[in-house]
Amino acid sequence: MSDPQQRFLTAVVEHDGRRDTVAVEEPLEIRVDGQPLTVTMRTPGHDEELALGFLFGEGLIGRGARRAGPAVDLAANVVEVPGPLLRDVSRRRFYTTSSCGVCGKGALEEVAVLAAPAPPGPVVRRELLATLPDALRQPGFEATGGLHATGLFDASGELLHAREDVGRHNAMDKVIGRALLDATLPLNGRILCVSGRLSFELVQKAAVAGAPILVGVGAPTSLAVQTAAAQGITLAGFARDGRVNVYTHPERIRAI
Amino acid sequence: MSDPQQRFLTAVVEHDGRRDTVAVEEPLEIRVDGQPLTVTMRTPGHDEELALGFLFGEGLIGRGARRAGPAVDLAANVVEVPGPLLRDVSRRRFYTTSSCGVCGKGALEEVAVLAAPAPPGPVVRRELLATLPDALRQPGFEATGGLHATGLFDASGELLHAREDVGRHNAMDKVIGRALLDATLPLNGRILCVSGRLSFELVQKAAVAGAPILVGVGAPTSLAVQTAAAQGITLAGFARDGRVNVYTHPERIRAI
Repeated sequence: MSDPQQRFLTAVVEHDGRRDTVAVEEPLEIRVDGQPLTVTMRTPGHDEELALGFLFGEGLIGRGARRAGPAVDLAANVVEVPGPLLRDVSRRRFYTTSSCGVCGKGALEEVAVLAAPAPPGPVVRRELLATLPDALRQPGFEATGGLHATGLFDASGELLHAREDVGRHNAMDKVIGRALLDATLPLNGRILCVSGRLSFELVQKAAVAGAPILVGVGAPTSLAVQTAAAQGITLAGFARDGRVNVYTHPERIRAI
Repeated sequence: MSDPQQRFLTAVVEHDGRRDTVAVEEPLEIRVDGQPLTVTMRTPGHDEELALGFLFGEGLIGRGARRAGPAVDLAANVVEVPGPLLRDVSRRRFYTTSSCGVCGKGALEEVAVLAAPAPPGPVVRRELLATLPDALRQPGFEATGGLHATGLFDASGELLHAREDVGRHNAMDKVIGRALLDATLPLNGRILCVSGRLSFELVQKAAVAGAPILVGVGAPTSLAVQTAAAQGITLAGFARDGRVNVYTHPERIRAI
């Protein structure tokens, strides 16, 4: 654990007469120009990345470099982001609140507003995709069994960044927030790999970040598959034991 | 799948030249007296239970029987609940937005406001607790690998209700909403069992519902352990292969 922020990942508890390690979960309040925007339960550390990645994924800030001010005292669990935001957030969620917008089709249309379709490429070997979860470093999970992870890989399978969190969405927000701070968005030619299941919201975040390939160890949902198909994203699941299912846009996958 | 609502759990997709089954994920808008309150991604079916269980867990409605009107057309993805609510929800989350409230201690205090400490009992065998996940029916998970489940058990290990959902919190909300409709809240003497990890929010929901024992297949978080300890709940994790860790209030567990 050379990353000093990883010291916040785990805590020691006692149970059944012995000491054990669990994942840390604490609330984080994200403030914009001093105004509370939202509270999320998360694993402390990399809070600046989490806040920026979250706001970017919701279409509330652009790709331009912007620093978020992590509290000096991390126990305060507050992160400050300078405004302004790109649109009004008096309605917290981006879904329209007319009933016609509250369906899978409405959700897909909202993602299309936030994200351009993924450009063609890269093309990767199916076997490479299947082995990415093994290359995803998860020291916190190994210690606790209680953390999700997201990794950013290049098309050759090299791991660029990995983040862990009790919340699967937070782990991806942190990776995308890191890319925003590094000015490497959109993630053209990159692969996002998650340690768990593939929900709509993870596909949405990948789409907004411009990642053409999203692979997970677990199962996709129906809306994740529909969203990936519509956004030109290659969605792959059940990546384990040298195998992987490719649900959408297999043109980026070659057999050997 | 004798429950007719379970026909909404899964959908068929094609990938890699074959047909496969995935978990359905769709947004649901919960309205109170016609006003949109929140949107959650969920697996359709048992939406009335989901809405009532969610509102009860947030302390927004009481135990009194109350029907929610599921839309006749489930594709509309809207559920209507009659008001009034027990408190103002102009702030969406229950966390206080002053920085002193945004910490683990603040979260614990908020749960204590919503929920009385669990009363003593029941006392169950450790082996019984370890085998509850095997008794938790998960037909949707077996078909898709993509659903979480929550089951309500009595102290002898008999399964009373089980619900599945792409969201782990939703599965518990549905079980608690079912109990509200059945007028069996609080869940004194009952056991809640979840198919995954144990987060703060699951412990919160169990506490508000009055369940004295919460067991999961996966790992607990630090805040889940702290909250269970403070609320008098027996929290058990890693229930698999005939074993289980008991993190808090082991006085309800006996060896044989």
